[in-house]
Amino acid sequence: MTDLIVTERLGPVTRLTLNSPSSLNALSDAMLAALTGSLGALADDRETRVVILRGAGKAFCAGHDLKEMQAARTAPDKGAAYFLDLFTRCGAMMQMIPALPQPVIAEVHGIATAAGCQLVASCDMAVAAEGTRFGVNGVNIGLFCSTPMVALTRNIPRKQAFEMLTTGEFIDAARARDLGLVNRIAAPADLSDSTLALAQTVAAKLTAAVKIGKRAFYDQLPMDLSAAYAHTAAVMAENMMMRDTAEGVQAFIEKRKPDWH
Amino acid sequence: MTDLIVTERLGPVTRLTLNSPSSLNALSDAMLAALTGSLGALADDRETRVVILRGAGKAFCAGHDLKEMQAARTAPDKGAAYFLDLFTRCGAMMQMIPALPQPVIAEVHGIATAAGCQLVASCDMAVAAEGTRFGVNGVNIGLFCSTPMVALTRNIPRKQAFEMLTTGEFIDAARARDLGLVNRIAAPADLSDSTLALAQTVAAKLTAAVKIGKRAFYDQLPMDLSAAYAHTAAVMAENMMMRDTAEGVQAFIEKRKPDWH
Amino acid sequence: MTDLIVTERLGPVTRLTLNSPSSLNALSDAMLAALTGSLGALADDRETRVVILRGAGKAFCAGHDLKEMQAARTAPDKGAAYFLDLFTRCGAMMQMIPALPQPVIAEVHGIATAAGCQLVASCDMAVAAEGTRFGVNGVNIGLFCSTPMVALTRNIPRKQAFEMLTTGEFIDAARARDLGLVNRIAAPADLSDSTLALAQTVAAKLTAAVKIGKRAFYDQLPMDLSAAYAHTAAVMAENMMMRDTAEGVQAFIEKRKPDWH
Repeated sequence: MTDLIVTERLGPVTRLTLNSPSSLNALSDAMLAALTGSLGALADDRETRVVILRGAGKAFCAGHDLKEMQAARTAPDKGAAYFLDLFTRCGAMMQMIPALPQPVIAEVHGIATAAGCQLVASCDMAVAAEGTRFGVNGVNIGLFCSTPMVALTRNIPRKQAFEMLTTGEFIDAARARDLGLVNRIAAPADLSDSTLALAQTVAAKLTAAVKIGKRAFYDQLPMDLSAAYAHTAAVMAENMMMRDTAEGVQAFIEKRKPDWH
Repeated sequence: MTDLIVTERLGPVTRLTLNSPSSLNALSDAMLAALTGSLGALADDRETRVVILRGAGKAFCAGHDLKEMQAARTAPDKGAAYFLDLFTRCGAMMQMIPALPQPVIAEVHGIATAAGCQLVASCDMAVAAEGTRFGVNGVNIGLFCSTPMVALTRNIPRKQAFEMLTTGEFIDAARARDLGLVNRIAAPADLSDSTLALAQTVAAKLTAAVKIGKRAFYDQLPMDLSAAYAHTAAVMAENMMMRDTAEGVQAFIEKRKPDWH
Repeated sequence: MTDLIVTERLGPVTRLTLNSPSSLNALSDAMLAALTGSLGALADDRETRVVILRGAGKAFCAGHDLKEMQAARTAPDKGAAYFLDLFTRCGAMMQMIPALPQPVIAEVHGIATAAGCQLVASCDMAVAAEGTRFGVNGVNIGLFCSTPMVALTRNIPRKQAFEMLTTGEFIDAARARDLGLVNRIAAPADLSDSTLALAQTVAAKLTAAVKIGKRAFYDQLPMDLSAAYAHTAAVMAENMMMRDTAEGVQAFIEKRKPDWH
């Protein structure tokens, strides 16, 4: 049996590959469980400083596993309990990404649709291959992408999100970058190298600083200005008390490399 | 007496035209009442799947009716009660648009200023003719566009909104699109066709899915991530239980058109 | 002793210049106190209608004074209390800018990094010279820019902010404008004139209207739609009762200049 998630350790970068090419890496029950497990394990993995998430085969991820979902309709409740549980499990997995201590970068190619587009939006950063197509196109089959919308509307402006959700139309990588869904675009042949280079840039920073910074990033977003400043002032003061930060600041003053280990 | 709102039924699309060209479709008391009435009637109109809102004559809408407002100053309270009531009625009408079950698309040409710009920002989507000018220029006559600002700041970035509000300067259609205020731009001669094509695209989707999706869109926006996912998971599960959605998903699996009626 | 803040009165525009070129206008304790004092004084200055904030020398502002911060480590608590106090004082100063009655425009050149970038983001508007570099690069020395992030994430999209914060990389003026951090770009030789022209445009508006408009701008941003409309409807009604607004509206109707004094 093939692993649904392939885990590679590239120094401080851990790369997770959704590995179900024949289903376009659909987020089946098994895939959701595997991804939840992999992300959960990384939360306590002190060797991993940055995570890359990508998909094997022709596509990053095409969303939920529709055949599996239809099969649930044979239950006495016609699938009602299963569907609520499925979307709840999927939402919980998506929320693990901003909650993870390490930055998570989506490496996106081919298509990223519905929950696949949501996965891109949920990651802290995203690098896309030229030619990638993004969509929240469930509306085309009568299933509005309501949960993907949560992540998407926290990445791109309101009217543009509404258009994608109600027309089901795709946007390309350049448009995704202009709207804020993607950070960088690479030629398809360079996608993995470009994503890895971004990951290594972040991995070279002081891990403890990135960790408290990422947490504070999401914590302060919904706060009013006064609360956000009170919170982050305490975070920065805590950051200043780290031994490696004292060294980093001193090294900068002395125009030398910090002695971090 | 000419109707202040002309209502056309174009199959599943209902097109409302502000019809007071001589006043640049100013939102007078009568126009506000007419528009409020038209939107209210659409809320219960099961034949209408998408709404288009446009203006007759040279402009989409130039904002409030200043002469009518000045006339209110002759009251014993110098108009204080009238002004508060006017802005309250206007804000209530604006809020009817995101609350309407159907998507509402602004078809914008000429100028959209002050409350006219607010009307564009309040719509779910907007298509603008090349050459359209957008402004929240009340500041030029000493009346800061405080209520238009509510809608504008929920469409475009903060500093750009502040600039428009305090300089009173106009932006063109291309800039409006770049900032997020407009979805699409069309040549003036193609504006109505382009807007109708967008409306028909959305009207061809499953109405019930678009309806619960639009409601969930605005409901989840102000929620924190956890609450937003809890809410939308329930919405998607409910969506899955619709007969036509079961058919839509099955048709997709079987690579055929859904049998929706 | 040289003033740390140089204050110039250019008619209704007051220009504050951070004046510590040798430290790249670092926000030392003394600079923070001087800037806090200058902003506080402007709050009650009825002659000042618009404020420009700029930096003397090669840079707008390079953030905190790292040498001063390191010196605090000799305290018995290794600086813990000082650091929390420093970031609290700095955050309080940043919050004075949106709270000031007058619009504040950042005039930015050279570099704007860390708390210097935060200062740009905290201003109501910003004009940048071509070639200006913006960064929240504390992560490079192990000190995540957690307080600058508060202002930055309220200006630019989420993923782009995360990238700047975790990579420490700079963006140029054109990118800053595209993302929303900057309103306008000028050739270096034209920067002061361009900024002053923007300031004078705003200063020529009715001061009382700009004042209540700016306050309402920030007040309504975090509100839900219904509360935001209730609040701003009252603000606009109050605006309408101003004598100069009555004159401004009437002058517009009569196609003449308002008689404001």
